[in-house]
This record gives sequence, C-alpha cells and structure tokens, in this order.
Amino acid sequence: MPADENCIFCKIAAGKIPCRKLFEDEYSLAFLDIEPASKGHALIIPKSHYPTLLDIPEMELGRAIATVQKVAAAAMKALHADGFNLVQNNRKAAGQAVHHLHFHVVPRFEGDNVRLTLGSKGAMESELAEWEKKIKENI
Amino acid sequence: MPADENCIFCKIAAGKIPCRKLFEDEYSLAFLDIEPASKGHALIIPKSHYPTLLDIPEMELGRAIATVQKVAAAAMKALHADGFNLVQNNRKAAGQAVHHLHFHVVPRFEGDNVRLTLGSKGAMESELAEWEKKIKENI
Repeated sequence: MPADENCIFCKIAAGKIPCRKLFEDEYSLAFLDIEPASKGHALIIPKSHYPTLLDIPEMELGRAIATVQKVAAAAMKALHADGFNLVQNNRKAAGQAVHHLHFHVVPRFEGDNVRLTLGSKGAMESELAEWEKKIKENI
Repeated sequence: MPADENCIFCKIAAGKIPCRKLFEDEYSLAFLDIEPASKGHALIIPKSHYPTLLDIPEMELGRAIATVQKVAAAAMKALHADGFNLVQNNRKAAGQAVHHLHFHVVPRFEGDNVRLTLGSKGAMESELAEWEKKIKENI
C-alpha cells in the first residue's frame, strides 16, 4: 500500500503510533479524534496514503465511505446523538491539517454549540450560469 | 426507485423542477446549490429518496461518492480553486434542511471568508475511553 514515512496517519495505520481504534478492515481505519469538536468525534481514513479525495481510487473510496456509514451508525446509537455531520477537507485552503485523506464524523446533539453552518453568500443567475458551464466542461 | 412526493430533491431528480445540472448517471445527480456558500458550490444526491447517510444501501452510496469525486475534480479545475470541503449533514440537529441525503462540495479559495472550521472542544482521556468503548460495542 502507498505510504508516506512522514505522515502521522500512515504511522497510525501501520500501528506505529497508538490510536483509539473503533473499527478497521483491509482498506480503512476508524479512530477517535483526540481533539474532538463534539462527543464521539471520529476520523475515518484509507490505510493507504492519498492526500485528498481526488487521489483515491474508486474502490478504496467506496470502502472508506462504507466505514464512515458504519461508524456513524454506531456513534449515533452508542451516544444517543440527534444527528451528525460528515466533513472532509481538501488542501490547506479548505482547512486540511493532515495531508492524508480523512473523513470527520461529528455527532451532534440538540442545543450543542458546534458551529458548522454553510451560510449562503448569494449569487446572481449569471454567476450560476457561468459556474455551471465551466464545471460541466471539465467533467 | 424510492421517492417521496413532497421532497424537492425527488422532484429535481425526476425532472419536475429544473436545476443547474452538472452531471448525472443512473443513480446520482449533481447540480449547483442556488444558495452557494462559495463559488461553484455543488450538491450531489442519490436519485432515490434516502433521508440520511445511514439509510442508503452501500452500492448506491459508492456511486454517489464517486460522483462527488468527479464533480469536485471538475470544479477545482474549472474554477481554479485552492481546495474544497465536502460536507454532509444528517438530521435537523446537524443542520440538515432538506431531508433527502445530499453532499455539499464547497470549492475554497485562499483568503475567502467561508467559515467551516472544526474547533476542538477538548476531551479528557476518561471521556475518550468511554466514547471508544461505547461506539465499538455498537459496530
């Protein structure tokens, strides 16, 4: 499997650094975030080193998201959560701190103060039309 | 395919309400969010009606996340973005407004003012140990 010797998540995947492991299969690993944004905040990673969501092959991505689903279901049940956010940041401009693809599962509770809102900045129809055209041209 | 006659995303998937469509395949659909948090903010949905990430079968989830990857790659390239966030909210407590599973792809640009940070609330070792135990018991 591809690995980066300087990557902390590769070291965790290889068992060289301990973690609070929740689940693992051949391709993915889930463990608690030790700087949690909420009760039960978990991270799911592919065991191989892929920097972002754009770098992982489709099969391994499918396995990782299946693990996200499994861990989120367990966290909801175990902690009696009222909901959860799935967050995954790509590159520094998006807040990615560890450059090994990871999914955050953030259990949410009514009245918690976790701030994770996608406020609208608004857009003109002409802007929307331009974005639509450009993105479609690149698919 | 399962559908909910009162669901706006089911209506979009069925072509009854127009959208700024970016991509579609047999199981998934991508279109622009008309209340964008950033330039090129896109939504990816399964065509079938599943309220949350916990409700979708693994095969369709795999297809949806593959579409997320495809659209994110295109948006990065098309709009010269510096990164992107993937966000997916489950249930009202987590900020879910439309109760049909949807993934947000939010392109990010250096110096934009999109606020999407997962600040740590901190946790004691005893709390982490308790969460780990409970979640593992429910997987």
